[in-house]
Amino acid sequence: MAYQKGDGKSVVIALGGNALGNTPEEQLELVEHTAVHIVDMVAEGINVVVSHGNGPQVGMINNAFDFAHDNDGKTPAMPFPECGAMSQGYIGYQLSQAILGELKRRSIMRSTATVVTQTVVYPEDPAFQHPTKPVGAFLTEEEAMRRAEEDGCTYKEDSGRGWRMVVPSPKPQRIVELDAIKDLMDDGYIVIAAGGGGVPVIERDDSYHGVPAVIDKDRTSAKLAADFKADMLVILTAVEKVAINFNTPEQEDIDTMTVAQARVYIEEGQFAPGSMLPKVQACIEYLESHPGGTALITSLDHAAAGLKGETGTTITA
Amino acid sequence: MAYQKGDGKSVVIALGGNALGNTPEEQLELVEHTAVHIVDMVAEGINVVVSHGNGPQVGMINNAFDFAHDNDGKTPAMPFPECGAMSQGYIGYQLSQAILGELKRRSIMRSTATVVTQTVVYPEDPAFQHPTKPVGAFLTEEEAMRRAEEDGCTYKEDSGRGWRMVVPSPKPQRIVELDAIKDLMDDGYIVIAAGGGGVPVIERDDSYHGVPAVIDKDRTSAKLAADFKADMLVILTAVEKVAINFNTPEQEDIDTMTVAQARVYIEEGQFAPGSMLPKVQACIEYLESHPGGTALITSLDHAAAGLKGETGTTITA
Repeated sequence: MAYQKGDGKSVVIALGGNALGNTPEEQLELVEHTAVHIVDMVAEGINVVVSHGNGPQVGMINNAFDFAHDNDGKTPAMPFPECGAMSQGYIGYQLSQAILGELKRRSIMRSTATVVTQTVVYPEDPAFQHPTKPVGAFLTEEEAMRRAEEDGCTYKEDSGRGWRMVVPSPKPQRIVELDAIKDLMDDGYIVIAAGGGGVPVIERDDSYHGVPAVIDKDRTSAKLAADFKADMLVILTAVEKVAINFNTPEQEDIDTMTVAQARVYIEEGQFAPGSMLPKVQACIEYLESHPGGTALITSLDHAAAGLKGETGTTITA
Repeated sequence: MAYQKGDGKSVVIALGGNALGNTPEEQLELVEHTAVHIVDMVAEGINVVVSHGNGPQVGMINNAFDFAHDNDGKTPAMPFPECGAMSQGYIGYQLSQAILGELKRRSIMRSTATVVTQTVVYPEDPAFQHPTKPVGAFLTEEEAMRRAEEDGCTYKEDSGRGWRMVVPSPKPQRIVELDAIKDLMDDGYIVIAAGGGGVPVIERDDSYHGVPAVIDKDRTSAKLAADFKADMLVILTAVEKVAINFNTPEQEDIDTMTVAQARVYIEEGQFAPGSMLPKVQACIEYLESHPGGTALITSLDHAAAGLKGETGTTITA
């Protein structure tokens, strides 16, 4: 064991989009801020696995490769799963660097490890019948048809703005590197893993194969937290607390709720699809699988206080 | 501990360029072959850390981003260190997938972990005064001057073929993720790390900062093997054995040599700079730092036999 593990809880933290950036410079700046909050938790003895999204970043990488491939006469076509793996290297490198810097400034003798992560999805997942997530550049119909022939992916017209590749968002079934992530956390590392929800792979012929898809990173984080029975799942977003009657005079922030209460709110349509709804659903998936755990939804700036139970929305089984 | 560690030696294997590929498809095919040989060693009880080069891959990524940045009006400029981190994610993902498949086919209950790796170099390394390694696309003089102003890097005319960015190749001083790599190996994982020699970083203001440079992957592998006192360093290349009087009627393959003998051959100019010379030098650096170790230079196809002492060129202190 290389480092002294913290004496506190084990926590999977899913960073929101605002923790990263749209360009390398912007991201370097944002991850510095993110790192301060993560190390605040580490300083409290908490053992942290950090996961993160990759929407803008994998889009940027995919765009750059598509554009270069179509125009420079030498760049190979880069499959979407490989672009996802690149985004994990890129974000993990910057995030790890920022956390290491913050650890050093506070003389905390811990280290980081970024693990390139694959997530198994089922080919029979109904999501594959209905690809819905637009990724990559806007194309002309002609370009889209040509690409579809080349890569076999689905392209759809996007609200009059052009054609885009659409990929499915299947359910994460198993995290291939789960054991490595858990072992590293137990060895005292701050682990960065499951970036972008993990590269989606299917199992076929005894082997994993990347598939063009995106996995909701909160859902993968929930799966990760459930599978190694993390004490807490923390989903960071733009707001301090989950609210009902959002944006109405009756808006009410929620301090705590049970899975049953959360389900009632979902039934009532309280949480916006594509926004708060999947985050609450990810928390429910975690708690159903690990009823002893605690889920927390809050903002990055309130995360450390939220972990002490001082703010945020706490969900329990 | 998640997996049963092998009962054999600990070995750092530096894959040669022919173990990977120039396009994603070609690489997927080549890594399958590479994986068979790596798992041959694992099957013998050997605990393996796999490192690899990234020259063609980081060049491709750097090219694609430069081209898209210059022409599509939206792709941000991507710094060279970030391109290196992307190449680690890309190669590590494919290599890991191939090794996992091969493990599964043989019912070996082990797993892999790809660790995004940073390697500390010294800013006062004399290499920074003499950038020599050309990377990325050929440019016109005008483009080169414009880029130099934008990124502060050095651009040089390359034998009449155009202008290219040249970066220094400093000495690896410390592998930031050393402990994580060692701990994962001890926990029974086949670890993929230090890709492309690691992303070169300098320490400044208590923090690591990426620098545009390339680190010789054999040298980083030697440093890695020395630092955790690996029993063996294996450098894979295109030939089965190191030879003296290479390509002459007096060519003689070397089965074993000591560091002192290797030094004599180097003095005689027996090993080609940029080819066998840096490999032999990396072995010497490893053995000087860890005299109890054994270095082996051979080809991928002979690696498993070489580890049993049946072929290859073995170097000892």
